[in-house]
Amino acid sequence: MQFSSDNAAPVHPQVWEAMRAADAVDVSYDGDALSRRLDRAFSDLFGIECAVLWTSTGTAANCVALATLVPPYGGIVCHDDAHINQDEAGAPEFFTHGAKLMQAHGPDAKLTPENVAAVIDPICNDVHRVQPTAIAITQATEQGCVYTPDELASLTDYTRGKGLSIHMDGARFANAVASLDCAPAMAGPAHGIDTLSFGCIKNGAMGAEAVVFFDPSRAAEARRRHKRAGQLQSKGRYLAAQLLAMLEGDLWLANARAANAAARLIAAAVPDRLVHPCQANEVFVRLSAPECEALRRQGFSFHDWGPDLARFVTAWNTGEDQASALASALARL
Amino acid sequence: MQFSSDNAAPVHPQVWEAMRAADAVDVSYDGDALSRRLDRAFSDLFGIECAVLWTSTGTAANCVALATLVPPYGGIVCHDDAHINQDEAGAPEFFTHGAKLMQAHGPDAKLTPENVAAVIDPICNDVHRVQPTAIAITQATEQGCVYTPDELASLTDYTRGKGLSIHMDGARFANAVASLDCAPAMAGPAHGIDTLSFGCIKNGAMGAEAVVFFDPSRAAEARRRHKRAGQLQSKGRYLAAQLLAMLEGDLWLANARAANAAARLIAAAVPDRLVHPCQANEVFVRLSAPECEALRRQGFSFHDWGPDLARFVTAWNTGEDQASALASALARL
Amino acid sequence: MQFSSDNAAPVHPQVWEAMRAADAVDVSYDGDALSRRLDRAFSDLFGIECAVLWTSTGTAANCVALATLVPPYGGIVCHDDAHINQDEAGAPEFFTHGAKLMQAHGPDAKLTPENVAAVIDPICNDVHRVQPTAIAITQATEQGCVYTPDELASLTDYTRGKGLSIHMDGARFANAVASLDCAPAMAGPAHGIDTLSFGCIKNGAMGAEAVVFFDPSRAAEARRRHKRAGQLQSKGRYLAAQLLAMLEGDLWLANARAANAAARLIAAAVPDRLVHPCQANEVFVRLSAPECEALRRQGFSFHDWGPDLARFVTAWNTGEDQASALASALARL
Amino acid sequence: MQFSSDNAAPVHPQVWEAMRAADAVDVSYDGDALSRRLDRAFSDLFGIECAVLWTSTGTAANCVALATLVPPYGGIVCHDDAHINQDEAGAPEFFTHGAKLMQAHGPDAKLTPENVAAVIDPICNDVHRVQPTAIAITQATEQGCVYTPDELASLTDYTRGKGLSIHMDGARFANAVASLDCAPAMAGPAHGIDTLSFGCIKNGAMGAEAVVFFDPSRAAEARRRHKRAGQLQSKGRYLAAQLLAMLEGDLWLANARAANAAARLIAAAVPDRLVHPCQANEVFVRLSAPECEALRRQGFSFHDWGPDLARFVTAWNTGEDQASALASALARL
Repeated sequence: MQFSSDNAAPVHPQVWEAMRAADAVDVSYDGDALSRRLDRAFSDLFGIECAVLWTSTGTAANCVALATLVPPYGGIVCHDDAHINQDEAGAPEFFTHGAKLMQAHGPDAKLTPENVAAVIDPICNDVHRVQPTAIAITQATEQGCVYTPDELASLTDYTRGKGLSIHMDGARFANAVASLDCAPAMAGPAHGIDTLSFGCIKNGAMGAEAVVFFDPSRAAEARRRHKRAGQLQSKGRYLAAQLLAMLEGDLWLANARAANAAARLIAAAVPDRLVHPCQANEVFVRLSAPECEALRRQGFSFHDWGPDLARFVTAWNTGEDQASALASALARL
Repeated sequence: MQFSSDNAAPVHPQVWEAMRAADAVDVSYDGDALSRRLDRAFSDLFGIECAVLWTSTGTAANCVALATLVPPYGGIVCHDDAHINQDEAGAPEFFTHGAKLMQAHGPDAKLTPENVAAVIDPICNDVHRVQPTAIAITQATEQGCVYTPDELASLTDYTRGKGLSIHMDGARFANAVASLDCAPAMAGPAHGIDTLSFGCIKNGAMGAEAVVFFDPSRAAEARRRHKRAGQLQSKGRYLAAQLLAMLEGDLWLANARAANAAARLIAAAVPDRLVHPCQANEVFVRLSAPECEALRRQGFSFHDWGPDLARFVTAWNTGEDQASALASALARL
Repeated sequence: MQFSSDNAAPVHPQVWEAMRAADAVDVSYDGDALSRRLDRAFSDLFGIECAVLWTSTGTAANCVALATLVPPYGGIVCHDDAHINQDEAGAPEFFTHGAKLMQAHGPDAKLTPENVAAVIDPICNDVHRVQPTAIAITQATEQGCVYTPDELASLTDYTRGKGLSIHMDGARFANAVASLDCAPAMAGPAHGIDTLSFGCIKNGAMGAEAVVFFDPSRAAEARRRHKRAGQLQSKGRYLAAQLLAMLEGDLWLANARAANAAARLIAAAVPDRLVHPCQANEVFVRLSAPECEALRRQGFSFHDWGPDLARFVTAWNTGEDQASALASALARL
Repeated sequence: MQFSSDNAAPVHPQVWEAMRAADAVDVSYDGDALSRRLDRAFSDLFGIECAVLWTSTGTAANCVALATLVPPYGGIVCHDDAHINQDEAGAPEFFTHGAKLMQAHGPDAKLTPENVAAVIDPICNDVHRVQPTAIAITQATEQGCVYTPDELASLTDYTRGKGLSIHMDGARFANAVASLDCAPAMAGPAHGIDTLSFGCIKNGAMGAEAVVFFDPSRAAEARRRHKRAGQLQSKGRYLAAQLLAMLEGDLWLANARAANAAARLIAAAVPDRLVHPCQANEVFVRLSAPECEALRRQGFSFHDWGPDLARFVTAWNTGEDQASALASALARL
């Protein structure tokens, strides 16, 4: 029973269908009818005009976006635990040509006006210091927590007041929206963010994420950076098909709801062991090494997440039976 | 009838099957059993130990390879018409952090010892000049021509004698091997090239190319560059599945043979109008603008390739009927 | 007798004096009173409001300027013989993060509307091709020739019409102005160029060039790139002192006139052997290897500049006696 | 009375003399006899064969060195307060093409095996994380403290054991050696560091630092990066002259001793207000805003260094009278 990563989940049947249907499309790169529908589809989803590119990874989505927001001599404030800081092997530095990640600290991997201020206030505006240019928020966070619309409003108001751009890493944006049960825009776009990585791969797609530019005029530059990064797939129609399939009938939300429900079921079994509130599809549980071993002997796959800490991730295909089995096993410890 | 690009072709049914089967694999990134079979599969194919990474585009394959061969302060000799020089939007410069492409000139988009020498001989070895570090050969070339094993032996002997590394852009390597009807290694790897982009996308895959390192010790660095470039897909098993499907039962060769045969059929109709010998799956035909228009009115899709020049590309799925129809239409002009 | 390079010349006594006087200035970096006078001094020189940074080399001057004009995914059209293309070891690619130099060809190392058009017209505006973003002109050129105001007007009109920015490498700008005997602005700035490297080192300074931004709003970004490139010297007052000394009483022009006069004297001795018209302080002379050897035996230092070609460079300190001696020796051959 | 920066000090008379003498040298770039003496001079100084390049700034010295030690996908562990992290505007990221600075924390701006371990131990060796490749030590530190030979031995043993390279930023290396009163090598080079920025500008030179490679085979690559960064001055002989003048008769040590003595004199006046031990030429003093104002009214120039903290820097030319005057003024507060 697989709880190590939502990346381990298979492709959703509706996504497969849409991809197969794209066999009939015979236009290369992103000139095809499917790719051309993306701007409209996401503009409708959010009620904000936007321009959209597909990418093959979340890293590429984040980094194409960041490179359009931040010059090589700029800084990006992010939480120390942010995926862009910890898990992308320096990709933001590569795509931006050396912008500096500036780490904020705080619970639940969340940025706040206070912890951002703690980073940027000491930076005097002279030519010797890298100047902060943008912040990057992860929704849901790397610790499975969700920014509420109020938290976002407060953070983005503060940030824009400081003249910084805002990127949202939404590798698990669907899980955040499902958790908040709000209009999709309220989980990010409505608060004046500049760019969003709209994650699909962890949520049932195969190899397509959407990078969304809420100032569509930025897309022209982004398209050049995207091509230059080897991201412009010649059969892009198959990526567009995945994204459209995810949006179609709100499959993205249904999948995220299923994953979240499974996570809640697990979390409910061990309320006292939770390190972070379970607000999306990840459960961080205090577990000793012998306890971890015991669970693994019972067939549960998951990642250690530091000493005496385990991470369980659910996905669109995590069966209630699997989640219940894990919940019971945890409760028995 | 689609002759504009082999990228416009659909995914081959056997590739689809292999991808669907990968749904059962539940390991992320490139740790899965399919990805781990690639080194062996390609080592066997070429009879040379090699290490292999999948990428989502040929551009990424070329550029990950080049970045491991060439330092930022180095130069890459390529034909002026090379895809890396003309069609990758500066991706080689991006991945290598600014290496300089040095253009050689000659017929059929081929490098020769002579035209490489014309580029590198005038470059004195001082600190003011970018020094050539590698050459990049395209097999088959951007003008649909194929290097013979003898041509390769002569070019690579010369190149290694000059201390340069050798990359081969094999976006249409399959078409070259099919055309030469030789052991796969003889079309490149056996001649001491360092890296090969083994193209699959134009030849029936969906979004997976292989980048092959004939010095496997280079792969460790390449993996970091690959990740850092946003190329490490979290569901990489679906890319590995595509590559393995292409190798399985030599599907790659069968597909290329079909495409080449269709191209030969077309070329045979207009021997006097050919600008380059037709040795792979591209046919470059001297056609006036009115002639082009006449063909398009008959339903043929293709690209203009300069004034009075048209390019017709065939693919694994180009039916003999389609090729014959085009051949007849051309003959009638 | 030294004719190998104007870089071999010593520092002019007035420059030494000004530097010594800067010992009394005790402010670091570029906050000192001398550095702060530069904008005014150059604005007055050209009659155009501009912002000025000092750099330690012409390469840095060119590349800081180019990096503000050209994005990493852009192209720079320059003559194949341009210093930025041939002699800066890839510095433009480094500072711009990989912009592509696009080589034009033509006599006297000059760009013209025609040879620029030959480079840019075939580049279709799609995402696969690097798009030209700027041109770089050298005044005087690498072959010792000078653009007339008319030539500049025609070239810059054409270039701006194409939407490209314009950088002028003026490593020998003084020699060009002296040669044209025109208002300084007419040799470049008056024609709507964006940036100018105003060379002083070859012309009597020690280690200071000026990079001039005719849109002063660009300077803020340039200052960050300049610092980031390790160009912001902590004792910048000594660089500012050099530049101000060069401008003071038009020392820059007097020095250039002396150098040009010496070059003309040499050129006049061998009118039939000249490969380019002698319009500045360089003389390119057809000489066989034995002839070169003969000259060297007589104590003349100079560089070979290809087969049967020698380059003689004069400087502010080239005595008339030295020039005459060389002229006679050449005439005797 | 100037205590704001040692960069505010003038050029030492012996340095001026040496520079003037270089007028007689007429070879460009670094081919001159002075530049060619540097390897020998520093090898003799340290008793270790090394190769040396001059640069125009400490930033360039640090960054040319780091770029030869650290690949774009590597990490550099440094103290959070390190100049490369705080005051070089992202130059290390620029020169290395995006390597990641990893900040350690600890008193006196010193790295220790413990605080380096706290940074690197949590970094698992997988492809998702930037891997630490080097550490950068500042001697003397940004807080005016000096690593003892024992501290260095322990730190460098640990570091090499982890397979990391070692760079030393010696902007105030002279002050450290003067403070330790040890053989120059014992303050750094003898402990197996790879590269050293040997600072001269703060210590009496005008615009020349030495970057020292203790593995001379690294210099070839460094020379290319140096040129490519616009650091190869055409009249490099004037930089070599400065460096040789500093070494001549141990001027570097005499100057540093003078600066250190002045600092000690100041520090002795306010032992209870010192934030760090005064071991070089910087004194960090707890002072309230009104106290700072009072001092400034008395004609003392210095920088605030955070709330209720002032930094006083002495230089080779700080007279004992000036230092005494400041000491008295401080004591009177």
